[in-house]
Parts: sequence; structure tokens; C-alpha cells
Amino acid sequence: MPEFFNVVPPTEALDILLRNLRDIVTDKEALPLSQTLGRVTAEEVIANENLPAFPRSAMDGFSVRAKDTFGATEGLPAYLDIIGEVPMGQTPQITVSEGQAARAYTGGMLANGADAVVMIENTLEVDEKTIEVLRPAALGEHVIQVGEDIRVGERVLPNGHKIRPQDLGGLAGLGLTSAIVAKRPRIAIVSTGDELVPPDQAPLPGQIRNINTSIISALVIKAGGVPVVLAIAKDDFGSQRAAALSGLEQADILVFSAGSSVSSRDMTAEIFQSFGNPGVLLHGISHKPGKPTIVAMIKDKPAIGLPGNPVSAFVVFNLLVKPAIHTLMGLDRSTEPLTVQAKLIRDVASIAGREDHVQVSLIYENDSLLADPIFGKSNLVYTLIKADGSITIPMDTGGVYAGQSVPVQLY
Amino acid sequence: MPEFFNVVPPTEALDILLRNLRDIVTDKEALPLSQTLGRVTAEEVIANENLPAFPRSAMDGFSVRAKDTFGATEGLPAYLDIIGEVPMGQTPQITVSEGQAARAYTGGMLANGADAVVMIENTLEVDEKTIEVLRPAALGEHVIQVGEDIRVGERVLPNGHKIRPQDLGGLAGLGLTSAIVAKRPRIAIVSTGDELVPPDQAPLPGQIRNINTSIISALVIKAGGVPVVLAIAKDDFGSQRAAALSGLEQADILVFSAGSSVSSRDMTAEIFQSFGNPGVLLHGISHKPGKPTIVAMIKDKPAIGLPGNPVSAFVVFNLLVKPAIHTLMGLDRSTEPLTVQAKLIRDVASIAGREDHVQVSLIYENDSLLADPIFGKSNLVYTLIKADGSITIPMDTGGVYAGQSVPVQLY
Repeated sequence: MPEFFNVVPPTEALDILLRNLRDIVTDKEALPLSQTLGRVTAEEVIANENLPAFPRSAMDGFSVRAKDTFGATEGLPAYLDIIGEVPMGQTPQITVSEGQAARAYTGGMLANGADAVVMIENTLEVDEKTIEVLRPAALGEHVIQVGEDIRVGERVLPNGHKIRPQDLGGLAGLGLTSAIVAKRPRIAIVSTGDELVPPDQAPLPGQIRNINTSIISALVIKAGGVPVVLAIAKDDFGSQRAAALSGLEQADILVFSAGSSVSSRDMTAEIFQSFGNPGVLLHGISHKPGKPTIVAMIKDKPAIGLPGNPVSAFVVFNLLVKPAIHTLMGLDRSTEPLTVQAKLIRDVASIAGREDHVQVSLIYENDSLLADPIFGKSNLVYTLIKADGSITIPMDTGGVYAGQSVPVQLY
Repeated sequence: MPEFFNVVPPTEALDILLRNLRDIVTDKEALPLSQTLGRVTAEEVIANENLPAFPRSAMDGFSVRAKDTFGATEGLPAYLDIIGEVPMGQTPQITVSEGQAARAYTGGMLANGADAVVMIENTLEVDEKTIEVLRPAALGEHVIQVGEDIRVGERVLPNGHKIRPQDLGGLAGLGLTSAIVAKRPRIAIVSTGDELVPPDQAPLPGQIRNINTSIISALVIKAGGVPVVLAIAKDDFGSQRAAALSGLEQADILVFSAGSSVSSRDMTAEIFQSFGNPGVLLHGISHKPGKPTIVAMIKDKPAIGLPGNPVSAFVVFNLLVKPAIHTLMGLDRSTEPLTVQAKLIRDVASIAGREDHVQVSLIYENDSLLADPIFGKSNLVYTLIKADGSITIPMDTGGVYAGQSVPVQLY
């Protein structure tokens, strides 16, 4: 398949990739709750009990029989006898009868026979034994009913849900001290190129330090995966094929950050193809930056050839590899809004028929959010470092203008 | 200090808290780059060298002397002799003179004597030794100059910056394989209340499982801190004071999730006060939910009493504890935009003179983002679980109306 024989739009590239992941089964593991923050549920969680399990007072005050307070006003209060209290965390040992009240605490139980709570603010203590109730309490008022938070059989969390701090509280409240979550997919990362040296090594003239492995590893972690970093592979078929094979053995997704020259890009495609069918699914996307992108399936595992330029590699990672990681984890992507709306402050030209991705920095000014496009070659990593996010210019437009409101995907 | 003697607006509460943290010195540590994702720089990073360190070709093509191509057109091309190539990662062994060109690869060096690169697309190879150049190359065209990405002495990252994947690439490119970052603040978490049992224990009637410790621990991790979880403290002065002391010894911030009843809230304030000056700085904020909030300084460490209701604890954590953690890490908060704009689909009433915080779920519909308010008591943790974010209704308004566009803080 010669390079760029048939470039495909980025959304189609993503469709092709994800369609090929459809039959891969998500590996699950059971983890103690404290280790599940940010992990993705691998099954639906159903409430095994009611929360709360008993009627709780929602206020500090007095548990009463509602009908004993009907008609009470400040001018004509209801007088009730205080018969005692229900201490926090204990079952009631007392019962309110007609004309009686028992001290109640927020979160505590009501006295037997009580069906409402009068807030302390709506009472006056006449003496230690008597209160005036100044306003009537409705039946069930200030009482959290059994199952009002969640009921037995209700869904606590859906499958494919990324676990947040509050979700942990919901699970803990039901006594669910572990959760079944998707295993984190392992992503093998191979940077290739005769010009690359590891970051801790001094480059000779003509050499540069490997930037992409650091960026891609961190993006993998952010996306929920585990990076498996392989050594830099030289620009020869044998080394790169060996690296690919090793990556495929150790990981669920293989990511090549290809050299940027035409010859090395072609080599990545050849290597992916050399493992047999289905092999290379597409080579080249109509997206700037990121045109020289390769998507393949090798031994039922996705293999993605990212461009060598760091900005392109970063952008295409987010476009294709991140959704692939999410899909392998079974994450429902619709739950992740990640954009802010900002007003563009400079024109951005584009070419129709190609989706453009432009880095922007965000400026807060007089309560409005402004997006300043950063123009820079995709081989300049500092373009990314100055950016707070990026905007996408759709394929069918010739650009966007200063003053337009645009959605900014945040980093 | 009696409860709610003098409630303060939430922004003022935050100011008071952060003002008291001003003189606390951020502890630093040097970490290898691979461990710094999401950490906060504790000093400015300055470029120690130029990136790139040599002029690099930005394209596949030929390095040439620009003036040899001046005036070239498709009708009247410039003919140049191919004298060889400069392989990737190597210094040039060849020099182009008048009328000569050398093969150049994206990211590779130029031949000696060359000052521009002609894209391969703008050439025709007449034979193995000769090319036609169809368009003139400007001086320096398609050449990434020394320091064009970043220059010696330029700032790579500011102090107080949260490290992102792309930042790791920028550091790696310069051979900076470790970074000085703020130590992660330790947050002691004490949940109090006679009614609480640990989540792995079956509650008796009147008891409930501890929800807040799970939520607060996860919020601490998300904010960049390390949770130090202490055992549930009973509702007596001795146990709670011992827990506070132990927490202060082990951590940088003490967080109490107080019982919800007036008596236990008062006890938290008394305990905080018992350690001497400055003690309790404020007790009660004009915010719903979260009114019964306590801010204190004990032994130069902040101590925060969160309300006992999970929703209130969650909201006040984000309002006060999260910014305190960020401040201790020296994080520049202005760099974190976390809101999306959405159209409210139902009226939300509020009371002037109090800031309201309302949970919302987000709905994507026809390309627009809708916010559906979730009304629920602050003791219902599932209110939070159904939420995607929250909106804040300012103190001076009586509510917001359906159809209004509101900023939603995302979870």
C-alpha cells in the first residue's frame, strides 16, 4: 500500500479502528475500593440494600406525631412534652404518644411512633420538659425515608463508567468495598529513527533526543492505560520488526512513533503488513497535523503508526489511540465532556477537504474566555507546551474568523 | 465562638484560609521525569541548550543554495546536480556548491553550504543525477533553525505549573531527565460520629456506614495530595482531640468531617480552639450546602471542619480544601479552566445573600449542551452520583432561569 494512496477523514479512520476492536473482550479485575478511583466499571453495580436503611432525621429538633402539630402557629403554638432523646447511632428506646416529642439529631433515628421532625428553629423550649411548636409539621417532614438515597435493585453505577470520588462514597455507603473494573490496557511504545538517542544521552551533531516516548507514555497514563516502553528502534526492517513483535507480545496496543521521512513511514507500513492479515487498514488521514498516520490490525491487536513530529504524534494519539484505549476498557465516551467555549481572537485559515487541528492558548479577560491560536510547525514541541488546548476546523470550511465562538478541547 | 455567630461569604472564607497559608514553605523533591506527570513544578525551568541544536530539514527533499533556485518555474525549472545525501542522524560529509543539491530527510541535517530545502513535491528527477526545481526556495525555507523550538535561556516551564504529557516531551528534548516538584501535601482525614461504622462492617439499626472518608480521600488524590486516613472518632471530646493531634502530627492539613448535629459541630470548633492561637478563624459560611463549615489554624497548619452531609462535605472540599492543597503545592490556579457553558433547562430558585451550589447533569442535544439541575437533600450521596458538575448561584441573585447559559464546573 503506497503512502497516501487513499487518505481517509479522521472520523472515518477512528470508525475503522474502533470497529476492529469491537470483538475484543475487556479483561476485568476486582479491586478494593480505595484503588478504583479513575478506573472504569466492568459491570453494572446494583444496590444490594436501601440507603438509608431506617428513617433518619434530616434536622436537629424533635420527632413528633405530625397530627399533634396541625394548626400550630406562633400565636397559638402546640405544647408537647419532651419524653427524652434518641441518641445518634442508637435505636429508639422511647415511644411518642399523643402530645409528646423526643429530641432528634440530624442523621439519627426517630422515636417510635413519630412520623415527622420539627426543626429546632420552629420550637421554643418552655422548660426542660415542654416545648412550644410554632409551625405545623407535615407527615414525613424532615425525615429521610428508607431508600430515599438509593433503593434495593436500583442501579448504582452503569457499566463502562469512570469512577469518581463521589461514586466511591456511594459504594462505601452500601458496604460495597470492592468493585469489578476493566484492567488497564497495556500500550507498547516504540520510537524509531536513526537520529534518536535516549533523553539521558548527549546527542551528537545530527542526532536529537527522543521526545515522543515521554509524551506518548504520559498520554497513555492519562488515558487510563499502562505504558510499556521499548528501546528506540533503528531505521532498519529487522530491528523494527523485532520491536513490533516484542511490543505485540507484551501489550494490547502497539504504537509506533515512526521516523518522519517518507522511507521510514513506508517501513512502518511494511512491518505492520508483514504479520499477515488484516494488516494495514489505512495509511494517511486528511488531517493536519497528522497526515502520515497508519492504522493496522496485527494478530487481533491494533497497531498504530503515529507521525514522527511530536505535535502530530500528540494530536493523532488523542484522535485515535486514546479512544482505542477507552474502547478496550469499555469506557462510555459520552460521559466525558472536555471542551470549553472560547472566542477566537485571530483568523485561522484552513483548507477545505482536510480537518485542521490548531493549538490555542486560553486567556481570561473580563469574565470571557479568549482563544489565541498558536501557529507553529508540527515538529516544534514547544507549540504544545504553550497551548492550553486545541480547536478543530471541520473539513468543509475554509477557516474560522476572529470573533467566532469555538469549542476548545482542553489538555 | 458560638455557631453561625458571624457567617462569612465563601470567597471571603477562602481568602482567610489562603492568607494564612501564605508563609508556609512548599517542600520540594527531585523526581525522575517519568514520575512527574500531574505534579507541580517547584521552580522555573530554563532551557540549558538550543532545540534544535543544528538546522534541521522540515521536509523530505533536497538541501540547496536558495539563490540557485531563484526564478525557477514549471516552465523554466532550475536544473541541479544531485551530489549525494545526508543520512538521518549524521553530520553532512558533502558540500553543495553552485548548481548542486543533496538529498535531505525530514529531521535530518542539511548539506554543508546549503541554506534552504526544496520539497520533493516541487522537484522532478530527470535522472539519478539531476533534478528540476519547479519553484524557487526562499532563504531558510523548510529549515528549522537552531533554537527555533526553544532557545538557551528561555523559560521552559514556569514555577507552579502542573506537568502535562507535552511538558515531559519538552524536558526530555533538552536532556532534563528529572524535575524539581512540590511534595504532595498530606491530608489527615477524620470522620466523626457515634452513628458511623466502617464500610466493611454491617451497621446496626441507627448506624450508617462511613461515606465521607472514601469521598474525601479520593478528592485529596484528585487534588494532588496524599490522604492519611484516621479511624472514625466517636462523639466525645477526648477521642476527637486525640484524632486531631494524631492527624496534625502526620499531615499538612487536618480535615474533620464533623457529625451533622449542632452539638458535634460545636465540639469540632472547641477541639480546634483547644490547641491555642490562632485557632478557629471562621465558623459558618453563607453557602448552601455547606453552612456548618469551620476553618482554623493549629500549630501553623490549616484545620478544616467539613459538614457531615456527604454532598456538603464534597462541595466544601472543592471550595476550600482543594485550593488549600493547591496553594501548599504552589500551583498557579489560573491555569486550570474547568468549566463548560451549558443552557439551564429548569429554573433554579435561590436566596439572595447566600451562594448556592446546585448539582447538574449534562445532556448533549443537537450539538448544544444542556444543564439539568438535580434537586436533592445534601445528605443524599446519590445526588452527587447523578451529577456531572455543579453551578454556582451568586449571592446577589434570586436564582437563574431556564434558558440562561450558565458555567458548569465539571467533576
